[in-house]
Amino acid sequence: MNEYRIEFMDEALRLAKANVNSGKGGPFGAVVVKDGRIIARGVNLVTSNNDPTAHAELIAIRNACAQLEWFELTDCEIYSSCEPCPMCLGAIYWARPAALYFAATRLEAAEAGFDDAMIYGEICTHVEGRKIPTMHVRHKLAASPFIEWKTNGNKIPY
Amino acid sequence: MNEYRIEFMDEALRLAKANVNSGKGGPFGAVVVKDGRIIARGVNLVTSNNDPTAHAELIAIRNACAQLEWFELTDCEIYSSCEPCPMCLGAIYWARPAALYFAATRLEAAEAGFDDAMIYGEICTHVEGRKIPTMHVRHKLAASPFIEWKTNGNKIPY
Repeated sequence: MNEYRIEFMDEALRLAKANVNSGKGGPFGAVVVKDGRIIARGVNLVTSNNDPTAHAELIAIRNACAQLEWFELTDCEIYSSCEPCPMCLGAIYWARPAALYFAATRLEAAEAGFDDAMIYGEICTHVEGRKIPTMHVRHKLAASPFIEWKTNGNKIPY
Repeated sequence: MNEYRIEFMDEALRLAKANVNSGKGGPFGAVVVKDGRIIARGVNLVTSNNDPTAHAELIAIRNACAQLEWFELTDCEIYSSCEPCPMCLGAIYWARPAALYFAATRLEAAEAGFDDAMIYGEICTHVEGRKIPTMHVRHKLAASPFIEWKTNGNKIPY
């Protein structure tokens, strides 16, 4: 894990602020660093792309993986202007970078009107009683995709 | 909230199983339903697209939003072959559908070799001591994107 370098956070915060001025989306920016240089950037494009998943970290991860032509970010660091929401933190775990640095917190995001803190609460709650009604349904074929996966000799694990 | 209809879960599970056979990615499928019909589908494309965020639910949400030309899925239901991972559950909260149905559980996903249950544990843990080293850093401009957001008269809240 490489040490924190302020110039990369400067850039994440610059992207976040500029994104508000551009009108493209929310006040968030992120960069992916590998071997001491920025290999990908991301800003929030939710409203301009009509894509609720277009958060800065998700876009930075997708851009970085496209660069590396691989589905993991081993030996990379992610710098985010704000603590990642649960969606983005989940994406970071799937991407498996070496480190994550963030500046503002989920509480500051909440104060600015974003649902991050609420979603953390929901995700860490039992399925029953969530704000979005959620139901685990029984289906006789529920396990069939996993059986197919376990017995398939051609799969690429991830 | 419309009632659960098994034919939509049939389709999510069919997609999940077919995706393994096609070699495109993991054993997961999802559909988005609006007004009693499927408006978008998604399968896991992590390895074929080199995109760790290309989970079935995320892709189904992005496809549905593209269809609706809007960044929310109000009055839609999401059917997923498996309990969404934290990334996908976060995406579902941002998309704000009316309901979520899933068949297999996170534990069945874990048994098949997927990290969902581990990531739930990590997200619900304090920032310190996570498996991916995570650091909240102080930066004098940390709040500047939010200040810009609050004072910008042209923003589209989401």
